[in-house]
Amino acid sequence: MADSGTLDALIDALRRLPGVGPKSASRMAYHLLQHDRAGARLLARSLEQAAASVRHCERCNTFTQAPLCAICADPRRDSGKLCVVETPADQAALERTGAFQGQYFVLMGKLSPLDGIGPKQIGLERLFERAQDGAVREVIIATNFTAEGEATAHVIAQALRERGLTVTRLARGVPAGSELEYVDLGTIAHALIDRH
Amino acid sequence: MADSGTLDALIDALRRLPGVGPKSASRMAYHLLQHDRAGARLLARSLEQAAASVRHCERCNTFTQAPLCAICADPRRDSGKLCVVETPADQAALERTGAFQGQYFVLMGKLSPLDGIGPKQIGLERLFERAQDGAVREVIIATNFTAEGEATAHVIAQALRERGLTVTRLARGVPAGSELEYVDLGTIAHALIDRH
Repeated sequence: MADSGTLDALIDALRRLPGVGPKSASRMAYHLLQHDRAGARLLARSLEQAAASVRHCERCNTFTQAPLCAICADPRRDSGKLCVVETPADQAALERTGAFQGQYFVLMGKLSPLDGIGPKQIGLERLFERAQDGAVREVIIATNFTAEGEATAHVIAQALRERGLTVTRLARGVPAGSELEYVDLGTIAHALIDRH
Repeated sequence: MADSGTLDALIDALRRLPGVGPKSASRMAYHLLQHDRAGARLLARSLEQAAASVRHCERCNTFTQAPLCAICADPRRDSGKLCVVETPADQAALERTGAFQGQYFVLMGKLSPLDGIGPKQIGLERLFERAQDGAVREVIIATNFTAEGEATAHVIAQALRERGLTVTRLARGVPAGSELEYVDLGTIAHALIDRH
């Protein structure tokens, strides 16, 4: 136990990270101070710089340093297709497939009424404006297949269809490479319903 | 996916934390930037300050900002009893029991020959000097009850007994294979009382 206000302050600050409790925070602090002070300083600088310079893309809402992110600024992307995702991590997963050449809108969240997160909190109005730019022909909703992601998809789809847009949803089905025996029943049922 | 070198640098820097892989690092970065920039700045400042000002206690080797930590500087602590622990977290667990009024030596590690960590790397010579200050009547070894902690205890006990010191070990009330930091306080207290 250290008599160190500075060390305690560091442990408290590390607990601001999602998924980090008091013991993990202590471990992280001890590790950095004992074995990796260069890493601690690097992390400090990176946090400062990111907090100061990372903002949201004016078109798609993802994180970027320029007014427009690289994808929105890329003229080769198909502006007729707009894919709606919850987070930059989901967007990155889609990009890694190489199967989508359109543009994105990143919600940076999902509807969660129990937590007080409604359409206003995740800025759905901005999405509706973005989708009605005249170029978008199809909105592909790629929110997660969780209860909250599905509810978010439902609300978005309804609102965009009312505005006369074509709305699709990522197919639900059996994951590639998996054996039916080990897939949960709900997934198999959806794959049966969505068969093509 | 952001076109942000700054964001990627932050994710890389977060991976310097122990137990944080690429997905957790991304989640942490997105969370701080989306919901808690104040937390990001606070963490940056805390890291800078700790990296600059936290050092090792001259007597017990734990983290401190002063030359001596609060426990070593406290005249009410019994200088006849010296408890050897692996980490400040283990020391904190012992302190929370309130069952020990002596002083500590914090190894900041354990012997691990397979990783090239021998007696020199964890500074056992400093412990041997500390234990031979003339005041210490008993050295209580409270390294973890893991294979490496037991080996460390064995090496320390042998060396200190050769130097004519009384050496005891926490009683085996502590479940074998577990780490002190995660053991309940009552068990640790009993193990202290039953030391042999």
